[in-house]
Amino acid sequence: MKPSVGLIGLGLMGRPMATNLLKAGHEVTVWNRTASRADELVSQGAKRAATPRALAAASDVTLTIVSDPPALESVLWGDEGVFSGIRKGSALIESSTVSPGLEKRAAAAAAAVGADFLEAPVTGGTWGAEKGELVFMVGGEEATLKRLEPVLGVMGKRWFHLGPVGAGQTVKLAMNLLLDLEVEALAEALALVTRAGVAGEKLVEVMQSSMGRSGVLDIKAPNMLKGEYKPSFPLRLMHKDVGLALDLANQLGVPLPAAAAAREVLSAVKGAATEDVDFSALASFWKKK
Amino acid sequence: MKPSVGLIGLGLMGRPMATNLLKAGHEVTVWNRTASRADELVSQGAKRAATPRALAAASDVTLTIVSDPPALESVLWGDEGVFSGIRKGSALIESSTVSPGLEKRAAAAAAAVGADFLEAPVTGGTWGAEKGELVFMVGGEEATLKRLEPVLGVMGKRWFHLGPVGAGQTVKLAMNLLLDLEVEALAEALALVTRAGVAGEKLVEVMQSSMGRSGVLDIKAPNMLKGEYKPSFPLRLMHKDVGLALDLANQLGVPLPAAAAAREVLSAVKGAATEDVDFSALASFWKKK
Amino acid sequence: MKPSVGLIGLGLMGRPMATNLLKAGHEVTVWNRTASRADELVSQGAKRAATPRALAAASDVTLTIVSDPPALESVLWGDEGVFSGIRKGSALIESSTVSPGLEKRAAAAAAAVGADFLEAPVTGGTWGAEKGELVFMVGGEEATLKRLEPVLGVMGKRWFHLGPVGAGQTVKLAMNLLLDLEVEALAEALALVTRAGVAGEKLVEVMQSSMGRSGVLDIKAPNMLKGEYKPSFPLRLMHKDVGLALDLANQLGVPLPAAAAAREVLSAVKGAATEDVDFSALASFWKKK
Amino acid sequence: MKPSVGLIGLGLMGRPMATNLLKAGHEVTVWNRTASRADELVSQGAKRAATPRALAAASDVTLTIVSDPPALESVLWGDEGVFSGIRKGSALIESSTVSPGLEKRAAAAAAAVGADFLEAPVTGGTWGAEKGELVFMVGGEEATLKRLEPVLGVMGKRWFHLGPVGAGQTVKLAMNLLLDLEVEALAEALALVTRAGVAGEKLVEVMQSSMGRSGVLDIKAPNMLKGEYKPSFPLRLMHKDVGLALDLANQLGVPLPAAAAAREVLSAVKGAATEDVDFSALASFWKKK
Repeated sequence: MKPSVGLIGLGLMGRPMATNLLKAGHEVTVWNRTASRADELVSQGAKRAATPRALAAASDVTLTIVSDPPALESVLWGDEGVFSGIRKGSALIESSTVSPGLEKRAAAAAAAVGADFLEAPVTGGTWGAEKGELVFMVGGEEATLKRLEPVLGVMGKRWFHLGPVGAGQTVKLAMNLLLDLEVEALAEALALVTRAGVAGEKLVEVMQSSMGRSGVLDIKAPNMLKGEYKPSFPLRLMHKDVGLALDLANQLGVPLPAAAAAREVLSAVKGAATEDVDFSALASFWKKK
Repeated sequence: MKPSVGLIGLGLMGRPMATNLLKAGHEVTVWNRTASRADELVSQGAKRAATPRALAAASDVTLTIVSDPPALESVLWGDEGVFSGIRKGSALIESSTVSPGLEKRAAAAAAAVGADFLEAPVTGGTWGAEKGELVFMVGGEEATLKRLEPVLGVMGKRWFHLGPVGAGQTVKLAMNLLLDLEVEALAEALALVTRAGVAGEKLVEVMQSSMGRSGVLDIKAPNMLKGEYKPSFPLRLMHKDVGLALDLANQLGVPLPAAAAAREVLSAVKGAATEDVDFSALASFWKKK
Repeated sequence: MKPSVGLIGLGLMGRPMATNLLKAGHEVTVWNRTASRADELVSQGAKRAATPRALAAASDVTLTIVSDPPALESVLWGDEGVFSGIRKGSALIESSTVSPGLEKRAAAAAAAVGADFLEAPVTGGTWGAEKGELVFMVGGEEATLKRLEPVLGVMGKRWFHLGPVGAGQTVKLAMNLLLDLEVEALAEALALVTRAGVAGEKLVEVMQSSMGRSGVLDIKAPNMLKGEYKPSFPLRLMHKDVGLALDLANQLGVPLPAAAAAREVLSAVKGAATEDVDFSALASFWKKK
Repeated sequence: MKPSVGLIGLGLMGRPMATNLLKAGHEVTVWNRTASRADELVSQGAKRAATPRALAAASDVTLTIVSDPPALESVLWGDEGVFSGIRKGSALIESSTVSPGLEKRAAAAAAAVGADFLEAPVTGGTWGAEKGELVFMVGGEEATLKRLEPVLGVMGKRWFHLGPVGAGQTVKLAMNLLLDLEVEALAEALALVTRAGVAGEKLVEVMQSSMGRSGVLDIKAPNMLKGEYKPSFPLRLMHKDVGLALDLANQLGVPLPAAAAAREVLSAVKGAATEDVDFSALASFWKKK
């Protein structure tokens, strides 16, 4: 019989992940801070838990995917949190994007109560979550991964086992850092040519025929050229992730000058934003006032 | 009959370009500041000019591809420079990477003596120069481009007509800026994961399966992971080009914070370098001392 | 009768502050994570508390001055922490350098148990702490400040009432940010002239006769010119404080490009440091390898 | 008899310098690109030269103080430039802010025609120029300085002999870099406290009682707090000077991360400016839109 799954965090990623688990025949329990976010899933057959604790107590596998470190600390260690209810022998998959250090603390807390732990942040965006084509960046024991692969396989198409707990978030943070810098680079180059009187489309066309070709040019450039920033990967989350990457780098004493500069651009755009936008809206930093 | 071509600047790019022109049956005259660089081409059938002036006087098409703005100013306007010899009705193709402003001055000087002018910086590296697969970023008159396409076609596979004189260098500089920032981004992300104890190869593998995929990951990452920096695009030239891009941006009042940060990394590595290295050697900024 | 004072955190600042309180005739109880740090003060007449809780229970005024936010969270809210023992009607002076948000949480916790709260980070260095000439940056109620002025006056010569709780740390963080940037600016300018072959002393002399004159030139330049970095304000603490300032700025959406760049320099020097150094050791970033 | 002085460049600095020379009894000849700038000086007794060449031919001492490197190149080496007229045995004092390299070229050109050369950029602002209290940063021969001290003493109160030609500009550029970074640092700290709800005046007051005290806090902070940016040292000139300092640093391979970040702020403010402003207007980068 398929393991029951409890899913905490019904944001842009969590909801389609829960839907895919339901479709695949898992018993699914859900919890979200704003309870109404669960309504549609409940109408699809999910159970609603009153608390993270109750959810964990009722599930073979608990999966958390929440928006930031304080939210994760609250659902794991808060009163009525996961660690006050999780069962010995069950498993916890942690898929939020947080610091490697926080994952290590969560892994230790899981071990203390006899639960398996897998660090598994994701990439692939809402599109990947809906299609069940997420990519998981896994940190943890090989055996735990093997045991949980059938569950991961419902939500994603691929997983990379990157090392012990902490390695998953390290790669996830580095990846988002790199992605943000690729978009920053494109935005700076576009600002330059545009202000010099050359159409940005021409730069994109030339770049695509060169070593500078990239997924960002394929996927983000068209909307950046139009100035349309409907959120796919929200800027506020990228801002948080680049901040976490810089925190990690600063703990390690690794200077990241371009990333630090790019983080301030995200900050400025976030500070001026009046609605939720995609992180590629960092290009609006150069919008003529 | 094919036009005679005079080529000034026999560096990593100029030499294979001259070879391809000879192979295609053009009469080719060459000049280089360090005259011995012409020896092999002369043995292949090229004529050696005593001065840029003599070269221009003897050629239907004069092509310049030198290392930096002072070198170009010298070969064009110096005593015995191109503009003291170039014939009315001939054409000048300027393929160095310099500022848009300098190209505009050159175009005006050419017009004053009745010569056609085409701004045509290249991309594609030494490999592209050897295979005759360069890409030209053209600024200038449509008619001039049409007239010179047969010559460009001997050295390159493709050209983009980007606008009036100045547009070619604007796009070229933005392109190199973007390329440098893509490599800087990768270097920062690799420094972070490596110092955190995760193999850089894992980051590269995950990135390639994401929106962050890029030509830089394909072409530059393997050597960066090995710490091998045999020059393909020399760091000293990239440092110059990013500097030119920043100069242009500063003239226009366009802030480029990540590019400015990345330029200082190039500067530090250049300052510490003991031999000529590829620009991807910027990654050695993070080498443990 | 003078109020009894409990002092938590016996670092470079806390120890001389406790000594001055003893000399002024206060009954002083002390606690430090590493208990041996209290030995000398005990020999001078201080009482040793077993826990922060016991210290708070025994004191009219509890003063905390610890190294970073996690240390403060632990002594305030941990098992056996201050808030489990502090008496109604007593007062808590919080003098660590942490985020404004953390001070607000501490103020709310103090209010919940009926204790007065004063946010009072300090400046003046170990020298000021020894001489009783610290400057306090106060956030909180006017009445609470009035009540506690006699205690502050034993340790410092001056206090600025900057607003409600949070304002003190905001100014403290901005101040350290500014101080770090002043030293960074000097280090960059010295690196430039030195590498250009001009003695750094000459730049310092000229600056002092200009609008650019500053306390940093008086106090930090001499040792920077000699490359001597005996810790007065340790680099690891400045690195933490600039990080807190950037965190605050990023929450507020205020881009701080030069501060962000300077933080990475601190990070690089911290990462390469083999012993504790003054924050002016950031100048060793430019040391020839 | 006092030497006759020819002064080229009648900007905010050059005009009061010429007035002081006239008052001191020197015969003064002037030239300015925009000739009408000389009218008032002519009414005060100055002679008007038709060209830099004529001015140099007529003067015992030629003094140049123009706005940027191209302007200097033009007045020195242009048709009808100084070097086509300057007399053997006369002296050239070069007081513009340009690169050390350009001064060295000018020194060599002066030597070639048998004229003495002194590099002598100034500090002290328009106020210092009017009061005759400029400070000169001198590079060149000791004997030349001795010979020209009486002339310098009419315009300034002090001079620093910093080394051979080039050392003066090196220190001048480093000085302006440091000054700009001090103002940038203040602007960032003010932006942070202001956006956090604390009055900027409070930060300034606390800073002045600390090691962070500075001339910039005395002189620039009051106007920055009011948002008044009447030009004393124009932003466009500071932008140029920081650019020259970065050019020098990049030639030498000295990374200047905070300076590079600060230069982009100047660039952004310059790009958005609609009138001439003081360089402290860089603080308007943080103005809420």
